[in-house]
Amino acid sequence: MKKYDVVVIGAGPGGYVAAIRCAQLGLSTACVEGWINDEEKPALGGTCLNVGCIPSKALLDSSHHFHHIKNEASDHGITVSGATIDVNKMISRKAKIVKALTMGISGLFKKNKIDWLKGQGKLISNNQVEVIPLHESHDEKIIVEAGNIIIATGSVPTKIPPASVDDKLIVDSTGALKFNEVPRRLGVIGAGVIGLELGSVWNRLGSEVIVLEALPDFLSAVDKQVAKEAEKVLRKQGLDIRLGAKVTGTGSNNREVTINYDDAEGKQQITVDKLIVAVGRTPNTNGLGAEECGLELDERGFIVVDDHCKTNLENVYAIGDVVRGPMLAHKASEEGVAIAEKIAGKPGHMNYETIPWVIYTWPEIAWVGKTEEQLKAEGIEYRTGNFPFMATGRAKAMGEATGFVKILADAITDRVLGIHIFGPNASELIAEAVVTMEFDGSSEDLARTIHAHPTLSEALHEAALGVDGRTIHM
Amino acid sequence: MKKYDVVVIGAGPGGYVAAIRCAQLGLSTACVEGWINDEEKPALGGTCLNVGCIPSKALLDSSHHFHHIKNEASDHGITVSGATIDVNKMISRKAKIVKALTMGISGLFKKNKIDWLKGQGKLISNNQVEVIPLHESHDEKIIVEAGNIIIATGSVPTKIPPASVDDKLIVDSTGALKFNEVPRRLGVIGAGVIGLELGSVWNRLGSEVIVLEALPDFLSAVDKQVAKEAEKVLRKQGLDIRLGAKVTGTGSNNREVTINYDDAEGKQQITVDKLIVAVGRTPNTNGLGAEECGLELDERGFIVVDDHCKTNLENVYAIGDVVRGPMLAHKASEEGVAIAEKIAGKPGHMNYETIPWVIYTWPEIAWVGKTEEQLKAEGIEYRTGNFPFMATGRAKAMGEATGFVKILADAITDRVLGIHIFGPNASELIAEAVVTMEFDGSSEDLARTIHAHPTLSEALHEAALGVDGRTIHM
Repeated sequence: MKKYDVVVIGAGPGGYVAAIRCAQLGLSTACVEGWINDEEKPALGGTCLNVGCIPSKALLDSSHHFHHIKNEASDHGITVSGATIDVNKMISRKAKIVKALTMGISGLFKKNKIDWLKGQGKLISNNQVEVIPLHESHDEKIIVEAGNIIIATGSVPTKIPPASVDDKLIVDSTGALKFNEVPRRLGVIGAGVIGLELGSVWNRLGSEVIVLEALPDFLSAVDKQVAKEAEKVLRKQGLDIRLGAKVTGTGSNNREVTINYDDAEGKQQITVDKLIVAVGRTPNTNGLGAEECGLELDERGFIVVDDHCKTNLENVYAIGDVVRGPMLAHKASEEGVAIAEKIAGKPGHMNYETIPWVIYTWPEIAWVGKTEEQLKAEGIEYRTGNFPFMATGRAKAMGEATGFVKILADAITDRVLGIHIFGPNASELIAEAVVTMEFDGSSEDLARTIHAHPTLSEALHEAALGVDGRTIHM
Repeated sequence: MKKYDVVVIGAGPGGYVAAIRCAQLGLSTACVEGWINDEEKPALGGTCLNVGCIPSKALLDSSHHFHHIKNEASDHGITVSGATIDVNKMISRKAKIVKALTMGISGLFKKNKIDWLKGQGKLISNNQVEVIPLHESHDEKIIVEAGNIIIATGSVPTKIPPASVDDKLIVDSTGALKFNEVPRRLGVIGAGVIGLELGSVWNRLGSEVIVLEALPDFLSAVDKQVAKEAEKVLRKQGLDIRLGAKVTGTGSNNREVTINYDDAEGKQQITVDKLIVAVGRTPNTNGLGAEECGLELDERGFIVVDDHCKTNLENVYAIGDVVRGPMLAHKASEEGVAIAEKIAGKPGHMNYETIPWVIYTWPEIAWVGKTEEQLKAEGIEYRTGNFPFMATGRAKAMGEATGFVKILADAITDRVLGIHIFGPNASELIAEAVVTMEFDGSSEDLARTIHAHPTLSEALHEAALGVDGRTIHM
């Protein structure tokens, strides 16, 4: 029986990064992954690379360009006649990017001498993993021995009974990445990150998009001031966001989907050409053999771990979407690195207080740390600095002046407690906020840091000055 | 005679920011500015807002969009027929942005109760400033008394005898912002920041651009590895960059310009439709009355100041382009803030080690701290981390995977000594580098900071990991 220092189950951004870091640290490492891609080939990268972050960003970029050409290029004096988009070409561009990146991971595995065990990983015990082959006829089941096991099996789209995915008219986030034409009417169940991103893609390409959200509040985990502004802007872009709308049933013929939902005013019905179900993600422990091995799960299906990603089984760790904490690729990766280092006897550590969040609408939404509502709930005294992109030269020169930066700092120590950005390139601007918080920096630290002119990051600088009531440009 | 606590001479990003900060601190403040804009009206904002950073970025953005539509939109499946650009519309968009921003400064002056003294400021003594009116017939000369004087008169384009600007065919950086059509053949003297930015604008719009640079090295102040890569990429974009090309004379009829220059191979001649002279900027002390007052200038015309921007005259300070240090708007602004705070009795301070630089080519070039060549010259032992954007998912999804990040860290302490970025949105990515250096952070600090996925900032994260030889994705 082959023996490894570490066997990682799952090769998404948690698992493959953990495997690479283990190998770098001199541990013999295998990674079990049975993902089959659209070309019917085994692929590394998990949800993130195959059907998540990367393909959605490719489509967000393509659709952003198309929308800009149709609607904003003329502001610059640019005239185009008859801009059209070939959806299949857009989708195959996305597929090419995904393929290059997933093949890249497989190259990294070779370089780092990580064995990719192709199949479904199943725990036999706390030091044995069974690999169930993809094609039972061709391969044999194998069992490998493992000094340590890292479970990184991720998550899957949550299913809801009233809207059962048929992969034709009713799809989940995976299906929404490969429509072969722009639906005239698109329904989206769920106004979370995924629903808003995918809704934005197709809205920009011309779909009439209706987003049904069961909760009464828009983006309830986001700082309320940001959520409110984002809601206004997204509605203006054409997303018909309906809050407090609980879907009770769907019916589809081969041409369209009827959706029944209840809202404050009673029973409602809409008809769309395609429906995306994006109501969240569920931890994936399918076929993992958790019960047989006594691996503890919580009532929501997450593997129970301590602060250091240890499960209840000796030498078995779990990271990423399958455990508590935000379902974010970079959270999974960093947990993977930390656990690899711990296994190698190094001081691996994960700071859950400084995990950035991004929603890739346009403008983008990004934040790190606490929201104003959280600080209030926790009774923490704070000061606020706000600055609109409208007042920065770079945003105006770009014609992208929607949104603002908001900094929350401790009223007594001035330590930065949260930074919230709604604006162009927020996904990149948040990096300086994370670094500041990682250093336990104060708003005064940011205020005294020189920011290049003209850049969007000046809005962070000004918001920091604003905490002390001394913005220059407002 | 009216008396102010502070009189600022010049209302560019050094002067107007200094004036606002003085006023915020309760000092009675006036700002002398005689700029007349294209509409023949007085305007605040100086070079940066009127004919520098802001208008050039507006044109860079417009031309970037145009170029993308013509050359890259099809990668996304977007088809457009007959994209054209109306240069006059592009220029008036720029003018509108400039107007909004300069009017914004004038609103800030009102809000902060700063008196804008319209005219040319001239030192009478270390506590008197004369304001020479713009239209001698209408206004009277006035003299104001000042507890403190801040000189922020900026810089002007450097003139060279062999290429005398006629504002028709031969222009400086100001004239290059208002061509009314795309020149078929464009010459640029000087491959510095301004020459490359303006050359890029017109190259993207269709000009054949020849850039003549007297020095044998491309971007000699930039980290050599970055400069080399940027040179390659810009050449590929169509900039015909000729190094070691010393212009000896120009001749123009009303249709075209002939340029004679010497290079390693002998005497050369080219003919172009327009010529931009962008050989640098000269400190502006015209009409300031420096000599009469005994204000000390150095041999290159800069006002001599100490580390705290004090001139040789009591209570007279000078900041920005007119003093030593990089000619960058944000350097001027921060000096303005620091001096305002000092005058108000507060601990104003300026960290010259952490001033970011940006060149707005595409990809952009940005850096902070030392180059590898500087470290070598200073005999400092360092370690290097490099990471290409090609290996980041976000850059690939964007189709913008040219360039790399390079981090230089002290070999013993691991303190970050310099960060160099050539890549998409480098201007924004540099902010996190500056914050890290402002905290005297190490490459390990950056390596252990969570970066959002998928973002371009992950390349900084990986480069930081690279200092320790542990990049994940390479």
